[in-house]
Amino acid sequence: MAEYNVASLSKLIEQFERLPGIGHKSAARLAYHMLSMPEGEAEKFSNSIIEARRNIRRCSVCCNMTDKEICSICSDETRDKSLIFVVEDFRDVMAFEKAETFNASYHVLNGVISPINSVTPDMLTIKQLLSRLDGGTVKEVVMATNATVEGEATAMYISKLIKPLGIKVSRLAYGIPVGGNLIYADEITLARAVRGRSEI
Amino acid sequence: MAEYNVASLSKLIEQFERLPGIGHKSAARLAYHMLSMPEGEAEKFSNSIIEARRNIRRCSVCCNMTDKEICSICSDETRDKSLIFVVEDFRDVMAFEKAETFNASYHVLNGVISPINSVTPDMLTIKQLLSRLDGGTVKEVVMATNATVEGEATAMYISKLIKPLGIKVSRLAYGIPVGGNLIYADEITLARAVRGRSEI
Repeated sequence: MAEYNVASLSKLIEQFERLPGIGHKSAARLAYHMLSMPEGEAEKFSNSIIEARRNIRRCSVCCNMTDKEICSICSDETRDKSLIFVVEDFRDVMAFEKAETFNASYHVLNGVISPINSVTPDMLTIKQLLSRLDGGTVKEVVMATNATVEGEATAMYISKLIKPLGIKVSRLAYGIPVGGNLIYADEITLARAVRGRSEI
Repeated sequence: MAEYNVASLSKLIEQFERLPGIGHKSAARLAYHMLSMPEGEAEKFSNSIIEARRNIRRCSVCCNMTDKEICSICSDETRDKSLIFVVEDFRDVMAFEKAETFNASYHVLNGVISPINSVTPDMLTIKQLLSRLDGGTVKEVVMATNATVEGEATAMYISKLIKPLGIKVSRLAYGIPVGGNLIYADEITLARAVRGRSEI
């Protein structure tokens, strides 16, 4: 049996397969889609990757992704520079920006401390965060890392570095998601929701 | 509030969002991944799209994707040219090639008839299929379209065109998937499995 094998097709599928959360079947579907697109569209897709890689860098203040030296949030005069949300990556910034606005500033860690993935604290933007806390402008740092073991550990690690500076450090509340059904909540979340209960 | 908006990042996310089965959150995750990749990798990804678009065309016999004039299956002398599996797209060919080999030839329709998506019979490669049946080489055509309403209708449509030519037309068997659990099978599949039962 001569195997069905088209080099540039296999290569395209392979490239898609390397993306997170894309298995072999999805990769084949995406490759097929890419080949069925109108002529200019696939090129546009391809170019948007190259362009993004070329234009996007880290904001020199908050380390978020930006196409300028200082991102639009950091250069916004009306933002509260005394309140910093420390997040893992740019998607978290997007999430907060979509939620009720706190008009806060951000600091993007660019990951979490994770011994299993060999991510050490010096690979994150912790040094940049600490240098932002120097001037006396910042009054509170909200650790807004994910509620995972690694997010938690990273929040703890950083808060231990900040507390001696006399700056308030807080953590997002744990609890039942709004609209969430109690029977689907895990025990730990439920217990946290009870412990964090407030009078009504 | 100045919105957080980086043009080339939004554009990249938007491009990923246009892919089938990729929602906004996945698109953001993929874009993030693309920006975090080592330098050459993103470029490789981008190039593989352009390259595939440039190299891949339709086999002039079976209409499958290939980088040659005639694909490796059609140009394989040892293949049984009297047996054609009619499939929807190249992924189906890959699936059959991975399964028990029937050493058959294929014909790729490049879709299914679908009024809802404005796909009419003349947009598929039915004409090419019929012209392959001219020479008298082909003894049997297996309609191997998906077991969906559209795949079914397409199989019916094509078989009506082929039968008058005196060529045998068959359809894949319906039934319980191997390894499948009866309690998870829907009623229609179950009924088909019963009707298609064979003596043991």
